[in-house]
Amino acid sequence: MATIGFIGLGNMGGGMAANLAKAGHKVIAFDLSGEALARAGSAGCHPVSDPVQAVSDADVIVTMLPAGKHVASVYNDSVFGAARPGTLLIDCSTIDVDTARHVAAAAKERGLEAVDAPVSGGIAAANGGTLTFMVGGSSGGFSRAAPILNDMGKAVIHAGDNGAGQAAKICNNMLLGATMAATCETFALAKKLGLDLQTFYDISSKASGQSWSMTSYCPVPGVGPTSPADNGYAGGFAAALMLKDMRLALEASKANGAQVPMGERAEAIYAAFVEADAQGLDFSAIITALE
Amino acid sequence: MATIGFIGLGNMGGGMAANLAKAGHKVIAFDLSGEALARAGSAGCHPVSDPVQAVSDADVIVTMLPAGKHVASVYNDSVFGAARPGTLLIDCSTIDVDTARHVAAAAKERGLEAVDAPVSGGIAAANGGTLTFMVGGSSGGFSRAAPILNDMGKAVIHAGDNGAGQAAKICNNMLLGATMAATCETFALAKKLGLDLQTFYDISSKASGQSWSMTSYCPVPGVGPTSPADNGYAGGFAAALMLKDMRLALEASKANGAQVPMGERAEAIYAAFVEADAQGLDFSAIITALE
Repeated sequence: MATIGFIGLGNMGGGMAANLAKAGHKVIAFDLSGEALARAGSAGCHPVSDPVQAVSDADVIVTMLPAGKHVASVYNDSVFGAARPGTLLIDCSTIDVDTARHVAAAAKERGLEAVDAPVSGGIAAANGGTLTFMVGGSSGGFSRAAPILNDMGKAVIHAGDNGAGQAAKICNNMLLGATMAATCETFALAKKLGLDLQTFYDISSKASGQSWSMTSYCPVPGVGPTSPADNGYAGGFAAALMLKDMRLALEASKANGAQVPMGERAEAIYAAFVEADAQGLDFSAIITALE
Repeated sequence: MATIGFIGLGNMGGGMAANLAKAGHKVIAFDLSGEALARAGSAGCHPVSDPVQAVSDADVIVTMLPAGKHVASVYNDSVFGAARPGTLLIDCSTIDVDTARHVAAAAKERGLEAVDAPVSGGIAAANGGTLTFMVGGSSGGFSRAAPILNDMGKAVIHAGDNGAGQAAKICNNMLLGATMAATCETFALAKKLGLDLQTFYDISSKASGQSWSMTSYCPVPGVGPTSPADNGYAGGFAAALMLKDMRLALEASKANGAQVPMGERAEAIYAAFVEADAQGLDFSAIITALE
């Protein structure tokens, strides 16, 4: 069992830190929120009031933060000066590929090993320990990170070198966002053309229109498997989080000279939806705006 | 066994008529092309030089024509005046929903029963008798059409009332076109971000980015199942035919007040590709233009 410094105890990080403590690790936990710290304490972690305290004795440092700028500033201000040589840094945040690569290179210069390990799965998976991790880093870094990540998830995949975890995640999520948008507008068109939506599902789900968006997360209430659509689009994967991931993908496309016309169009659909969405609905709720 | 008038013996219709003859029907076949007529003769059909001859003694009249205007003109000029009362009209062409509904209503006024039955599957499926038919029409019309269609295909699905076959086909194909476009640009982005494409396939095909476009028809050579990508994008479903279906979907969207922003964006991608595509490549070849 390892001594793990955990920074970022929000909706996702709180459950993840708790699962590490439950697995028997010594988890020294930090967050800016006193409430989050108290919850981590009740879940078996050791809350501390300064991030340096969380990292100075750690074998492994896990971060779960909102964006690249937060990861860079925590690494620069608290981790790089205090972590012991050889410490493994696992960043589970979803951030831009460039920052992931830069902080990994900076860590290496300081004798630390860094991997990016963004997750797929929401709050329920974080609490239940059933996340999927897409890991970018060296083989050695991946081998060291895998057992820790396994204590928080059900699958740990090596996507490639540093940054590859973030790249795989944003590519997958941009594709998901675009496919869901296309699926939503197609069901809306089918309805306007007078098709019975269950009949259209029965045809298309076994034909070339099939996708995970259709057959695992159908945006039409009462059609296909149980999904957020069957619960008023509550829960699931918030449209605002999908928008965040799509924007990371567009940023990476621009920086790397890639053309993503479908991703751009989908981003505009989620942006308009999020602007009007006071309830933080699931991303598949864009069908209600397309109808 | 029925007496079947068959009009339209092109790439698709030629094979379909041959399969009806092979099944034991008396197929009276017409096409404007003498070459196509001769081929139909060799395949066991009875070629005739006037469409009225093909329809006047028929129990069933099958049409396989390029577009709605051809179907409307063949019905008006040759079928409605010559077909016996009660004759079943099966239009296997992919045409616009409005024309499909109009010709069916006009047929009904004349005591004829019409169904729209567009196909999924290409030339190989037409020749091999493994097409899928999406049928729009009354229950009675569907029941009469099904055994005939079964002699040309492997699946016959009742999509709803007249026009529903066309509606289901264009909805499915618009979704396919958009999903393939998103899949292509995502693989192109993954490549620019330095991901190994087989690794990205392994991750995304088991995650929320999965679609038929990815796991049954992967646009990347050497990745996923064997597809046109593994054969230089030859064969398969020509980009120009995808463009035709997408335009039918956009037309139907406009006529029915549906919003299809993803379909519109994808249409522009296929249109630009088809303009530059001298070889009639498979629709998944748009990845080469996005790369």
